[in-house]
Amino acid sequence: MTGVLYGVGLGPGAPDLITLRAARLIERASVVAYPTLAGVASFARSIAADLIAPDAREIVMDVPMSVERAPAQEAYDKGAAEIAATLDAGHDVICLCEGDPFFYGSFMYLFARLSERYRVEVVPGVTSVTACAARAGMPLAARNERLTVLPGPLPEAELRARIEGAESVVIMKVGRHLAKIRAVIEDLGLTADAVYVERATLAEEVVLPLADAPEKAPYFSMILLTKGADPWL
Amino acid sequence: MTGVLYGVGLGPGAPDLITLRAARLIERASVVAYPTLAGVASFARSIAADLIAPDAREIVMDVPMSVERAPAQEAYDKGAAEIAATLDAGHDVICLCEGDPFFYGSFMYLFARLSERYRVEVVPGVTSVTACAARAGMPLAARNERLTVLPGPLPEAELRARIEGAESVVIMKVGRHLAKIRAVIEDLGLTADAVYVERATLAEEVVLPLADAPEKAPYFSMILLTKGADPWL
Repeated sequence: MTGVLYGVGLGPGAPDLITLRAARLIERASVVAYPTLAGVASFARSIAADLIAPDAREIVMDVPMSVERAPAQEAYDKGAAEIAATLDAGHDVICLCEGDPFFYGSFMYLFARLSERYRVEVVPGVTSVTACAARAGMPLAARNERLTVLPGPLPEAELRARIEGAESVVIMKVGRHLAKIRAVIEDLGLTADAVYVERATLAEEVVLPLADAPEKAPYFSMILLTKGADPWL
Repeated sequence: MTGVLYGVGLGPGAPDLITLRAARLIERASVVAYPTLAGVASFARSIAADLIAPDAREIVMDVPMSVERAPAQEAYDKGAAEIAATLDAGHDVICLCEGDPFFYGSFMYLFARLSERYRVEVVPGVTSVTACAARAGMPLAARNERLTVLPGPLPEAELRARIEGAESVVIMKVGRHLAKIRAVIEDLGLTADAVYVERATLAEEVVLPLADAPEKAPYFSMILLTKGADPWL
């Protein structure tokens, strides 16, 4: 019988923010899979490390960093082929995903390549969005409020227009786009409503008013911008 | 010593989508708190039922359904006072929240009333947004795509404008607003891209193309509208 591919969300980083379902699947897994980016140790694997059986086989997709798409596509093609062969041999494969598999997750590249040929189960995870809000003590949205999620790499003019028309805003993937995003928020007079969070729920976590954020931000950083959910019903 | 108030996200409904941290907190809790709406059994409590100790004290906030705000506000005032007295007596209180406490959660009403006087820890949970996407097999956002979360009760003209300017859209709290939302999506020519999900991850779950959705939707229903995250990098 053909195996099942599980795309398993591991949450924002703290190992105990893994769900019971994800933990059970990983503990029982004979094959796990995950990407590494340009040879750097996998964040997803580090979240789940204590749950992976010592004798589990690990399929590692080493995705190069490059401007062109082709090298990364090839890495996912190769990984998908290895996963497919494992499924064909009757083994389930547990793909480890930081956060949630369908929310800016690299699992989508495997899903696109394999979901028509194999049974795929996606296990949702806690996203960094609500984890950052929890750590910052900032409610995201109540009642009939809207929430907009924007990637930091968007062009400055688009960021500005999207933030202007929004209520609560979450800006993901801040990283090297911090200065640009900061300038937009400052220019809109919203700096006092903005909080900077990096590595939420990990020991190295940083939560600061945007005005006090460092000059350099890691990829796993986020800006929350909200005038505060209306809490009084 | 004063107790700590925990706002604990329980995820979308399946008990095994509770996080390890939330499960541990609930199992050890001597006091749990949760709202019920108009006397109907609490959904949050039902998700966590198997984890609650038989001798745990339960603080139930019965929130009436009414057009005026005052009766609901009074219910949260009364619940907050009971929780405060419990914290003052040195006991922690675990507040049970479906989904995530800061994402359209009633916990925000307690947070607003108590967070300045007491230590409050928020444990993020899996939201219905990513749970519905997982169940529908619909990636939400990849790369530099935007995601917009809209509450179904918004006026028709606003819904239309917000959907038109968006990429991936999630419409929450569909319930009795289904016909209005459907008409907007149909009018924008987007029905083929829309999926209807109710009670995601529960035994009674329904996942259907929007065109095949029932006439009546429960409160816990959602519409996902996406042209598909770009999966090829």
